Amino acid sequence: MFTTDSKKRYAIIGAGALGGYYGGLLARSGLDVHLLTRSDTDHIKLHGLRVDSIHGDFVVSPAQAYSNVLSMPKCDVIIIALKSTQNHLIRDLISPLLKPDSVVLVLQNGLHVESDSEAIAGPGHVMGGCCFLCSNKVGPGHIRHMDYGHIAMGAYLGEDGNSPTVRQSIQNEIHQDFLNAGIRTELVEDLQYSRWKKLMWNIPFNGLSVAMNAPTDKVMTSPTARQLAIDLMVETQASAKACGIDIADKEIEQMIAYTDSMVPYDSSMRLDFLAGRTMEIEAIVGRPLREAKRFGYVPKKIEMLYQQLCYLQK
Amino acid sequence: MFTTDSKKRYAIIGAGALGGYYGGLLARSGLDVHLLTRSDTDHIKLHGLRVDSIHGDFVVSPAQAYSNVLSMPKCDVIIIALKSTQNHLIRDLISPLLKPDSVVLVLQNGLHVESDSEAIAGPGHVMGGCCFLCSNKVGPGHIRHMDYGHIAMGAYLGEDGNSPTVRQSIQNEIHQDFLNAGIRTELVEDLQYSRWKKLMWNIPFNGLSVAMNAPTDKVMTSPTARQLAIDLMVETQASAKACGIDIADKEIEQMIAYTDSMVPYDSSMRLDFLAGRTMEIEAIVGRPLREAKRFGYVPKKIEMLYQQLCYLQK
Repeated sequence: MFTTDSKKRYAIIGAGALGGYYGGLLARSGLDVHLLTRSDTDHIKLHGLRVDSIHGDFVVSPAQAYSNVLSMPKCDVIIIALKSTQNHLIRDLISPLLKPDSVVLVLQNGLHVESDSEAIAGPGHVMGGCCFLCSNKVGPGHIRHMDYGHIAMGAYLGEDGNSPTVRQSIQNEIHQDFLNAGIRTELVEDLQYSRWKKLMWNIPFNGLSVAMNAPTDKVMTSPTARQLAIDLMVETQASAKACGIDIADKEIEQMIAYTDSMVPYDSSMRLDFLAGRTMEIEAIVGRPLREAKRFGYVPKKIEMLYQQLCYLQK
Repeated sequence: MFTTDSKKRYAIIGAGALGGYYGGLLARSGLDVHLLTRSDTDHIKLHGLRVDSIHGDFVVSPAQAYSNVLSMPKCDVIIIALKSTQNHLIRDLISPLLKPDSVVLVLQNGLHVESDSEAIAGPGHVMGGCCFLCSNKVGPGHIRHMDYGHIAMGAYLGEDGNSPTVRQSIQNEIHQDFLNAGIRTELVEDLQYSRWKKLMWNIPFNGLSVAMNAPTDKVMTSPTARQLAIDLMVETQASAKACGIDIADKEIEQMIAYTDSMVPYDSSMRLDFLAGRTMEIEAIVGRPLREAKRFGYVPKKIEMLYQQLCYLQK
C-alpha cells in the first residue's frame, strides 16, 4: 500500500483538539482521512470539520467521520490522538484498521505511550510524535488553534530500544505528507530523546500546576517554587541519563528562559484536574519514574510529585 | 533564688491555648505565675483565667496578667509559649525578666527553637519541652483543654550540643513544680532526641496537611499519600541520624499505628494556613532540613515539602 504514487489513507483515532487539528490539515491537503469521533459524528457528517486557526480558518467538507471503528476502512497510517488515559482501548480501536504494512503514529504526551500500539501492530510498525500544539475543541466538529503546532516524530523502538525501526521510506513518506499539509514536522532519529526533553517541561509544569494549584507564572515568580521546578527538571534530566539519553544542561536553561517568557498558562493536566477528568499522571510522571527506577535511579522529587498527584486524582 | 524552700516565680510569655493551659495549672498549684497576654489582659484581671479541661474545669482568680513585659517582675522560670514565628521578639520579651539564675523553658514545636533564648539568657540557662497537648483558646481568658498534655522537657545544649547543661537540681525543681501542678512531665536526658522524634510526626502530618490540603485520615487512607508520609518519616529519621540522633525503626511503626487510630485531625499548621496566619514552616521543616544538610544529608522529599510550603505561605 505504501507506494510513492498512491495517496495514503489516514485514520485519526480521536478528533478532539489535537486529532481534529492535524486531521483537518491532512484532509485539507487532499489525503484520504477517516476520523473516529465521539459525540459529534453526525454534526461533522452534516457540517464538516471546522478549524479556526491562527494560520487561517477552513472547513473540511464533506468529512469522513465515524462513531464506530468497525465502519472504517483499513488504513495505511493510524494516528492515535486520544488522551493516554484511554490507551486501554487501543486494542479494540486499531485492530480493525490494520493492514500488514500499516503504521501507527502515536501523538500523545509521555513516555512509552507507544507500547500499547506496538503490542497490537507489532514491532517496526509504530512511530511516536511529540506535539507542541495549543488548540481547543470549542464545539461539535469545531477546533480552535491558538498557537504552535510543530511535531517531532520518529520510529518507536520498543521499551528496550531493540525493536526494528519503521522502514525509512515509510517514515519519509509520512513526514512528507505532514509537510505537504502545512504541519511543521521534524523527523527525529532518537524519539526517546524528544520524549524525555518534552518531559523535562511537562513533569514540573504539568505536575506542579496540579500539586501546587499553580499556573506557570506563579511557579516562576516564587523563588522556592521556581527552584523546585528546576530541581524536577534536573531530576528528569538525570532520569533520562539513567535510561541512556543525554540531555545537555543548556536545554534546561533554555526551557527556563522560555517559560519565563510565556504568558500565564494552564497545563492540560490542570485543565483535566479542574474538569474532574482523569489526568495523564501515568504517561507523564509515573512511567518516567518507573523507567528511571528500572535503571537504578530514584528521582525523589518526581516520586513525591507522583504520590501527590495520585492522591489528588482520587 | 533557686532554693528548695521558696516557691519559684514563673513568667508565661503568651497565654494562649498552650501558655494559658500550663500557666493556669501552675498557678492553681500555688506557684507565683505572671502571664504576658495580648488582647485579654483586662479581661483576665477582672474575671481570672478560665480553663475548661477534660480533667476538670477551674478558674485562676485573681490572675496576674500583663500587657507589657516591662510591668512584670523578674522571674525564676520564663516559659516561652508563643508560636515560633514570633521568636524574633524574644530579646525584647525576656530581657526584662532575667535574673542571673533564671531559666528559660521553651515550649514550642520544631528544632533549635531554643537558640533565640540561649542568645539572650546564655548557655546553661535554657531548657526546651515537647508538648503533646490538644487545647484551644475559645475566648478572652478562656482555654479549652481537649486531650493529652504531657511534656518531655530537658536541658538545651546549644546548636552544636556543647553548651553547659542547666544545673540538674534546677531541672529537678522545675520538673517537680510541673508534676505538683498535675502536668504529666518527663525529664529527658536528650532533648534533641525528643525534638526529632516529634518532628517525625510533625514534618509529614503538619506539612502534608497544608501542601496536599489533607487531614491525617485522608493521608492515611490513600495508598500513595500514606507512603509519602512514611517516606517523610524515614527521611526525618535519616536527618536525625545525620545529626547524631538514633531513632529506632519501631518508633516509625508505632507512630503510623497511632496515626491510624487517631480521629481526623487538623494540624496546627493547617489551622494557621486556613486562618491566613504565618505558619511555623521554619521551626518544623526549614530548620530540620538545614540541620540535615549541614551534616551532609539532603532529605529530598522534606526539601520539596519545604519548597511547597514556602510557596503556599506567600
